Amino acid sequence: MRSTETSPLTRKLSVFVALSYVELAVLDRLHTRRRIFPAGRDMVHQGQSSRAAFILSAGWVCSYKLQPDGTRQIVDFQIPGDFLGLRSVLLRTSDHSFEPVMDIEASEVLDKDLLDAFAQTPRLATAILWAASRDEAMVVEHLVGIGRRDADARMAHFLLELEARLALVGLADSNGYECPLTQYHLADALGLSAVHVNRVLRHLREDGLLTFRDGHVTIHDHDALVKLAGFDASYLDQTGPLLT
Amino acid sequence: MRSTETSPLTRKLSVFVALSYVELAVLDRLHTRRRIFPAGRDMVHQGQSSRAAFILSAGWVCSYKLQPDGTRQIVDFQIPGDFLGLRSVLLRTSDHSFEPVMDIEASEVLDKDLLDAFAQTPRLATAILWAASRDEAMVVEHLVGIGRRDADARMAHFLLELEARLALVGLADSNGYECPLTQYHLADALGLSAVHVNRVLRHLREDGLLTFRDGHVTIHDHDALVKLAGFDASYLDQTGPLLT
Repeated sequence: MRSTETSPLTRKLSVFVALSYVELAVLDRLHTRRRIFPAGRDMVHQGQSSRAAFILSAGWVCSYKLQPDGTRQIVDFQIPGDFLGLRSVLLRTSDHSFEPVMDIEASEVLDKDLLDAFAQTPRLATAILWAASRDEAMVVEHLVGIGRRDADARMAHFLLELEARLALVGLADSNGYECPLTQYHLADALGLSAVHVNRVLRHLREDGLLTFRDGHVTIHDHDALVKLAGFDASYLDQTGPLLT
Repeated sequence: MRSTETSPLTRKLSVFVALSYVELAVLDRLHTRRRIFPAGRDMVHQGQSSRAAFILSAGWVCSYKLQPDGTRQIVDFQIPGDFLGLRSVLLRTSDHSFEPVMDIEASEVLDKDLLDAFAQTPRLATAILWAASRDEAMVVEHLVGIGRRDADARMAHFLLELEARLALVGLADSNGYECPLTQYHLADALGLSAVHVNRVLRHLREDGLLTFRDGHVTIHDHDALVKLAGFDASYLDQTGPLLT
């Protein structure tokens, strides 16, 4: 079993809060029920009453809302260090579904254990509130993307956001990152057709901005991408601990 | 000065956590810097570094993101009992702007006081995490609305959500609620033109579902509206305390 000192969640929360030994130990105990979940099978169904959340330690997950007509809207993707269903535990019903994009590893956290952890270490509760705020800021950006950005800017913004998120947990470098998403995931998340997604990715490649091929995103011209997307990373708050 | 025992925020958080005298006193201290803000002038600008959040006690506020081309996307409206800029304090930069829809009353909360309050009463931190989760669930619904719902369903969903939120803080009854939003607010929030908003409201009125006139929403047929919108209120979690 991996040590929590280097777990992606610890790494992420440490950006906001300098964690003490006691806090690290409490986080550690939240990682005891590790499980593997296979790709393509829902871990949590929309409407299910939720007594547990998950901390994702390896792999990618897609969260989506099912519509009454059977179509789905992808709300976000979760990467290592993200909570799955934190909101559902607090709201007591899952308002969306989670589907692993690949085989993943995640730790189940019972609502009681989570609430106990908050009671023991308020700084941890504050750090998790920070992470939840960051998640909300991302959903806001996706809303703005679908409402206001053209297809090229929307894609560029989405891929830059992923780069920043992955960099925070050590899964991106200056060249780019591994990305297991298909054109169907991208289309659904961005409100585009799969054909449109292909066209947009071709534009970005032909303009020398980025290449997304064989599960890898390679960024060629970061500044130009940022400009195209109107990307301001401050909502991802990667600037170092506020609580020291 | 009003007593916090009956402040809208206290009323809202009490749905999730049965608050003790100590917790009520801590909440009370967060309400000491009350101020009036005039309609139509931004309280917080996007990009501003934020050392304070606000607790809204009277009136409505609109939160929006400004786009590089100068257009704006309304993300949500805040009603009494809501935080303004909680996310901005935690992320240290405001990722959006707040504009009072009417003259409002709000209490300024310094970041330090908020973090101190969390340290004193972890249950309060958990309750505020619950409120933030609920806010995020609303943004997710708005994303799905813009991405997937037709104009009539989108409007019906939006007005039903407002009814549920207002009911929680005692500002809606079985007939409906006061609503200061203009057709321009509705158009911007729902991604419709003002003309389209008028047409949709006429449909809903002619079908005997609801009337929005002279700043008041009157609901005539709740069940039919819920069906049209595919509205499932569980994401608003109004079911009573989890933390007792």
